Amino acid sequence: MTTHDNDAFKPIATVDLAIFSLTPAGLSVLLVRRTSAPFAGDWALPGGWIHIDEDADLEAAARRVLKEKTGVETPYLEQLQTTGNRDRDPRGWSISIVYIALLSADDVAERQDAMAEEAEWRPIEGEGVGLSLAFDHAALLKEALGRIRSKVEYSSLPGHLLPVRFTLSELQSVYESLLGRKLDKSAFRKRMAEADFLEPVEGEMRRASNRPAQVFRLKDTRSLVLFDRRI
Amino acid sequence: MTTHDNDAFKPIATVDLAIFSLTPAGLSVLLVRRTSAPFAGDWALPGGWIHIDEDADLEAAARRVLKEKTGVETPYLEQLQTTGNRDRDPRGWSISIVYIALLSADDVAERQDAMAEEAEWRPIEGEGVGLSLAFDHAALLKEALGRIRSKVEYSSLPGHLLPVRFTLSELQSVYESLLGRKLDKSAFRKRMAEADFLEPVEGEMRRASNRPAQVFRLKDTRSLVLFDRRI
Repeated sequence: MTTHDNDAFKPIATVDLAIFSLTPAGLSVLLVRRTSAPFAGDWALPGGWIHIDEDADLEAAARRVLKEKTGVETPYLEQLQTTGNRDRDPRGWSISIVYIALLSADDVAERQDAMAEEAEWRPIEGEGVGLSLAFDHAALLKEALGRIRSKVEYSSLPGHLLPVRFTLSELQSVYESLLGRKLDKSAFRKRMAEADFLEPVEGEMRRASNRPAQVFRLKDTRSLVLFDRRI
Repeated sequence: MTTHDNDAFKPIATVDLAIFSLTPAGLSVLLVRRTSAPFAGDWALPGGWIHIDEDADLEAAARRVLKEKTGVETPYLEQLQTTGNRDRDPRGWSISIVYIALLSADDVAERQDAMAEEAEWRPIEGEGVGLSLAFDHAALLKEALGRIRSKVEYSSLPGHLLPVRFTLSELQSVYESLLGRKLDKSAFRKRMAEADFLEPVEGEMRRASNRPAQVFRLKDTRSLVLFDRRI
């Protein structure tokens, strides 16, 4: 196997990120327009080669890419899967380690200036963005969407996409929008209380339709809370 | 970024396999003794470099390694996770894409001759095998065990470890052994019937303690059936 223990026989290795947040258009993903070959001019998931002289580990590589593209440092990050084959990149046998990142809508708004020039939020439509993407990124995005949609059913995931402070009505509305169905208000509030991932922002109320509503935030923005059954 | 677009800057990439089956000692994992540096003489999960001239994709690389070590071709294979950092391999920045394989006890017994000379089944004790392993393979094995144990709760996984033909009593006994608790016989049989992943082997009965028991096999050996709730 010594011939394979050689740089010329190593596959290409990249980290690629499916970065989600809520924009006025709904659930959205961050795309970048490629400026060089292959697929120059095409939209793609943000990603890059692992920098072995700089990145301590895969997650550090993913966080570096995230920061380069969005200016944001420490959101929720989760490894989705790794794809690798001889066909996906014209430059050669290529591995993509795919991460999912969830950004609060506040981070998106505040860091608009720090965002890479060629980056853009695109609303999700069905299983993609209604655009052809570079490499196999349309398939990777579809997988990422499947993962986050399945997690909406039994986790605090939607809370990671909202602005940092939100009311229970706003949270319910995001759950409903991601699930594509209405939820019963009192059952929803009971489940949120049981799941215990929210804390009230002391003394902060927001005027809702008829009476002031308590404002909440996540207890921990870095990890999802999993429910013991579907919402 | 051109300096990183160079073989000398690529990480090492391997596939490593946590291959499980049932042996007379219970749930067991296949280990190989390393014959060369680094970690020569230590036990490790079977694995190897991706052969970019030979492997079409990651799964093909995993199946090739599986066949080299066990002689078996097409069992259940599932990607667990990818680990990569600058410290895990003294030869340099290294990525391991880890797969879980489940082998039927029949395959293990029949292919004993095809198994690589330095390979050996080791019974699981707690979260490992009671041996120090090469690289970070003890941590990878612990992750793999966590994954399969969590799947026992809500899937057909134990059926993939048994001999190809088994009775419901034998299946229940493997569930109980992997879960570490007893199950109610009639509730267990009801759940197995609902999950619909078994088929009776026509006309094949086995003498149990008092009366003949129907023999079953999996409808599909290549994929797990997930239950809609915990067993």
